[in-house]
Amino acid sequence: MIPVVTPGGAIGILGGGQLGRMLALAAARLGLKSHIFCPPGDNPGTHVCDAITLAEYDDSAACDRFASSVDVATYEFENIPLACVERIASRVAVRPGIGALRISQDRLHEKDFIRQLNIATAPYTAVDHAGELSRAAAEIGFPAILKTRRLGYDGRGQVALRGPDDLAGAWEKAGGAPCILEGKVDFAREISVVAARGGDDAIACYDPPENTHRDGILDISRVPADITVEIAAAAKALTARLLAALDYRGVIAVEWFVLKDGQLAVNEFAPRVHNSGHWTLDACAVSQFEQHIRAICGWPLGDPARHSDAEMRNLIGEEVEQWASLAAQPATALHLYGKAEARKGRKMGHVTRLFPKDGLA
Amino acid sequence: MIPVVTPGGAIGILGGGQLGRMLALAAARLGLKSHIFCPPGDNPGTHVCDAITLAEYDDSAACDRFASSVDVATYEFENIPLACVERIASRVAVRPGIGALRISQDRLHEKDFIRQLNIATAPYTAVDHAGELSRAAAEIGFPAILKTRRLGYDGRGQVALRGPDDLAGAWEKAGGAPCILEGKVDFAREISVVAARGGDDAIACYDPPENTHRDGILDISRVPADITVEIAAAAKALTARLLAALDYRGVIAVEWFVLKDGQLAVNEFAPRVHNSGHWTLDACAVSQFEQHIRAICGWPLGDPARHSDAEMRNLIGEEVEQWASLAAQPATALHLYGKAEARKGRKMGHVTRLFPKDGLA
Repeated sequence: MIPVVTPGGAIGILGGGQLGRMLALAAARLGLKSHIFCPPGDNPGTHVCDAITLAEYDDSAACDRFASSVDVATYEFENIPLACVERIASRVAVRPGIGALRISQDRLHEKDFIRQLNIATAPYTAVDHAGELSRAAAEIGFPAILKTRRLGYDGRGQVALRGPDDLAGAWEKAGGAPCILEGKVDFAREISVVAARGGDDAIACYDPPENTHRDGILDISRVPADITVEIAAAAKALTARLLAALDYRGVIAVEWFVLKDGQLAVNEFAPRVHNSGHWTLDACAVSQFEQHIRAICGWPLGDPARHSDAEMRNLIGEEVEQWASLAAQPATALHLYGKAEARKGRKMGHVTRLFPKDGLA
Repeated sequence: MIPVVTPGGAIGILGGGQLGRMLALAAARLGLKSHIFCPPGDNPGTHVCDAITLAEYDDSAACDRFASSVDVATYEFENIPLACVERIASRVAVRPGIGALRISQDRLHEKDFIRQLNIATAPYTAVDHAGELSRAAAEIGFPAILKTRRLGYDGRGQVALRGPDDLAGAWEKAGGAPCILEGKVDFAREISVVAARGGDDAIACYDPPENTHRDGILDISRVPADITVEIAAAAKALTARLLAALDYRGVIAVEWFVLKDGQLAVNEFAPRVHNSGHWTLDACAVSQFEQHIRAICGWPLGDPARHSDAEMRNLIGEEVEQWASLAAQPATALHLYGKAEARKGRKMGHVTRLFPKDGLA
C-alpha cells in the first residue's frame, strides 16, 4: 500500500501539454488540485490547473519548490530529464517510479527488460556507432528500422531500411547517436493495452483498441479491436506481468503487434497515459487520466469496463479547423487541446465517435 | 445567429461554485479558456480556470475589467445581482439573456410568464405583505407553501402551511419579504427537462430524469423516468416553447410536476445548468455543461442522446466522506467539487451509476 492523497490534495504534473492538461482535468473531477511544471511556451495544461511553475527542467530551485508544494508528482512524457525527476523524488513521491522511467527512456534497455520477462519483441540488436550498422543489418536482415535509443517519439529518430542500399547515410539520418536496429515485424494488426496498477497492487486493463497510424503518428484507435477474446485476454495478462515486474503505480500503455499466427510481441511501452487510450474519456465511467490519478494517489482503481464501442481519431495540425463540423456529428465527443498554433504534425485535438456496445458500424 | 466564439476564446463565468467549476472544465474540453468572477471565499471553480477575478459583484471596476477580458459571459446561479449582469452586458454579450434572468429572479414573474404561454403551473397568488396572507389562503386552500418571491433555493425561504393554524408566524418564517402562496400539487412524480437553445435557434433536450428530494434538496435523479414516451415528449415540447418565448441561448432546466392524470405543470425553472442534469456528464457524449458552453458560443449543439441509463446521487455535507468506497463501485463515476469544508446541507459532490440503456436495475 502507498499513502493516500485525499480530496483537496495537490498533484504535481511535469509537462504542460495535452496529456498534462487531461490529467489536470481528471484530477479536478476527483476534488484534487493540480500544479503543472513546464518550461515557458505554449502550454495548454496551464489553462486548467491551480498552480503553475514555469521553469526549465534543470532549474533545481524550481524543482525543489515544486516538490515541496505537492502531495505526489507524476509526468506526462517519458523524455523528461531523469535528473529533474530524481531531484523531485528526493522530496516527494514520484509515480510511476523512476525505474520504469529509466527503462523506457532507452529502447535497448526497454527491449532487454521485456525479453527477460519472456515476452516477445521484434528482433533487435544494439548499434552503438556507425561502423556497427552493417554487422547489425546482417544479423537482423531487411526490412528493418534504425531507431535512436533515446528521445524518439511519433516516428522521430527512425529510419526505415528496405535493403542494403539504404544503409549509407542512415546513421546520420537517425541522429548520429546510439541506436537499435529492429527487424520489421510482419504483423496482422497493432493493438495497445492501457492498464493501471494501483497502490494496493490491483491491476485494471482497458479493452485493447486497434491502432492505425499515418506518417508515423497515431491516426485512429478503434475498440473493440478485430481480435479474438483469447488474444485480448493474453495481451492483458502479459501487460499485467510487465506492470508487476516494474512495481508500477499508475497507467502504462503497451503497444502490441498481433502476428499473423495470433502471437503477441511488444512494440514499445509508454510509462504514462497514452493517445491510444483517449477513447476511455467517453466510453468508460473512469478514463485513463482519472485512472492514473487514482493509482498515483492510492485510491481504488476505477472500473475499466466500456459502456460503448468507440472510434477515436486524432486531429493533427490543420485538421483541427474541422472543429465546427465535427462538433455537429451525432454521438460524438470533440476534444480540443487549447494549443495556440496548429503546426504540421502537432496533435491539436481528437474526436471520439461512440457506438452501441458490440456494434461498431 | 450569434457571433461565434472560436477555440482559444475566453468564457467569463459569474460564480465560483461547483456549477462554475464544471462549466470551466467543459469549456476546457473544447479548447476554450475560462475566467471566473466571484467574491473571495471557498470557490472551487477557481482551481480549474485560466483567470480569476476575486471581487464583490457590486465592484463596478472589477465588472468592467472582467467584461473586457472575455469573449462572452455567463452565470452559474440566478440570484446574482442584476445590476452586475447589466453592467457586464453593456460591454460583452451575456448569455442566457438578461430577460430570462430577470424573470427567474422573481417567482411571481416566473409563474405569470409561464401561464401566459398556456403552460400550467401550481395554483398561486401574490402575497405582498403579511396582511394579505389569510386572503391568499382562502383563495388557494390548504395544504400550501409560502415562498419568498426572490432569493430562494434548495427549500430556503419556504414555509409549508398544512392548515389555518400554520398561518401565524409564517410570513416572518419565510423572511418577511414579498411572497407567493402556492397550492400544493398532488403530483405522481417530479421530472425535469434540461434543454439548450443554440445560436441558430436549434433546441436540444436531454431525456427527463425523475427527481427525488430529501430535506428540500435534490437527492437522486434517475433516467429514464418512470413515465410514458408521450409524457416525456410533451415535457420536451413545452420546454422548447418556453425556450423560444424567452429567446434563450444556453441551457435551461425546467422542473415539471407529472400529475396523476398525466398532465404536466411547471414547478420552476432555472436559467442555467442544473443539478438534475449532472448525469449527462457520464451518460451522454456531450454533457449539459458543454452544451451550455456550445450554446453561448454559437457552436452547433451536441447530441443530447444518452448512451446509458443513469442514477445520479448527490453527496451532501458529510456524505462526501464515503468517497473511497464510492470510488470502488463498478460502472460508477465519482465527482467531487473540491470544496474545503463539508458543511451541513452543502453540495460536496455527486456520484453517477451507469446501467445498460433501457435496463435500470
